[in-house]
Amino acid sequence: MITSAHNPHLKAVRRLHDKRHREREGLCLAEGEDLVDAALAAGLEPELLLVAGEDVEPALLDAVSTLGSGTRVICVFPQVWAEAPGGELSVYLHGVADPGNVGTVIRAAHALADGPVVLGPGSADPWSPKAVRASMGSVFARPPARAAFDALPAATVALVPRGATPLWELALEPPLTLCLGGERSGLPEGLSDAASARASIPLRAGGPESLNVAMAATAALYELNRMAPDA
Amino acid sequence: MITSAHNPHLKAVRRLHDKRHREREGLCLAEGEDLVDAALAAGLEPELLLVAGEDVEPALLDAVSTLGSGTRVICVFPQVWAEAPGGELSVYLHGVADPGNVGTVIRAAHALADGPVVLGPGSADPWSPKAVRASMGSVFARPPARAAFDALPAATVALVPRGATPLWELALEPPLTLCLGGERSGLPEGLSDAASARASIPLRAGGPESLNVAMAATAALYELNRMAPDA
Repeated sequence: MITSAHNPHLKAVRRLHDKRHREREGLCLAEGEDLVDAALAAGLEPELLLVAGEDVEPALLDAVSTLGSGTRVICVFPQVWAEAPGGELSVYLHGVADPGNVGTVIRAAHALADGPVVLGPGSADPWSPKAVRASMGSVFARPPARAAFDALPAATVALVPRGATPLWELALEPPLTLCLGGERSGLPEGLSDAASARASIPLRAGGPESLNVAMAATAALYELNRMAPDA
Repeated sequence: MITSAHNPHLKAVRRLHDKRHREREGLCLAEGEDLVDAALAAGLEPELLLVAGEDVEPALLDAVSTLGSGTRVICVFPQVWAEAPGGELSVYLHGVADPGNVGTVIRAAHALADGPVVLGPGSADPWSPKAVRASMGSVFARPPARAAFDALPAATVALVPRGATPLWELALEPPLTLCLGGERSGLPEGLSDAASARASIPLRAGGPESLNVAMAATAALYELNRMAPDA
């Protein structure tokens, strides 16, 4: 039973709050039973498993948890990346800097697409505790990929906040990659011009100027499933 | 300039973290410039305005903020409720207990519907700081309503996680109310049976069993706009 905050295992967990350490070590954290179960169900082997009250004093585990008090388990797992973009339907994120949005898109793609979420430049680390949590464990079951827009193989659909053809008016055939830009700046113009198609989700007048990127991705993935339900 | 944590204005702000106080006083908080601006843009009159460094010492404002350190402004506004359900397209939430989900649905409905979000039994308070934040201020621009399912006037579409007709196969005409249940239990069976139609968002095999309620609502509102783009 770990009873000291200076224990090397606890220090290792705390280090993994930091992106540079996660990248260097190729590791990530699963905090809480649901995420640990999701990683195990995906076949990942834990590098370290700390259960409150069994392996470590509960207050010490809480102190290295991003969940705050009452954390029952923290596990260290290897990061798993998809080797390349692929699938009949996938998502590319360019400059999506919010880890909650990245995780939520990974969740949505796990439910509504068959390919990995491809992370382009400026996108948040999908292995941060916040992104892992927002993915509700989907990041383990459907590992993300890293690639630049130019490396995407399939036809690309750039989803822009306003002004393009309503998405439902396009007739698109898989394989397709849905491309979305960051919360503030959207897709770079060169990129949306280079996409095979550009589309918008029509919004009502008088409401918000744009949907959150995770909401937009979900609605668009629903639509692309509708267009090609057998993909 | 307020320099004491015992100041009655600061105590009033802190009390509004609590649902019972918010309900009794009919008030809510807007924390941060974006939300304050959204409330003012919606025409609401502040009951109290506290600006860090002008009206109150910054550390004291931080201490009564749910945002944590660096809060620049907190405003107290009256709660505004829509009198009744209405509009060509609206959303009914039954037992959606997570304030983040309630706020996100209010945001999505502001972008994609014209009626209020109607809150049924067991739904989270849309005026909690977390819900107000998740709505990104849409709760001020498009006030929610309270009603039971039986009081919904329009045709109702129950969105259930799995197994019903794909939403895209229905042919629905507004006025419509999209009905969604809570994160765990979904819509009560009696309610989904009583709805004018039942539908699901088709999900891929092997992925999550269900979409988060806010994601599901967004995809479904997109679809109902597609079906009746002139509504």
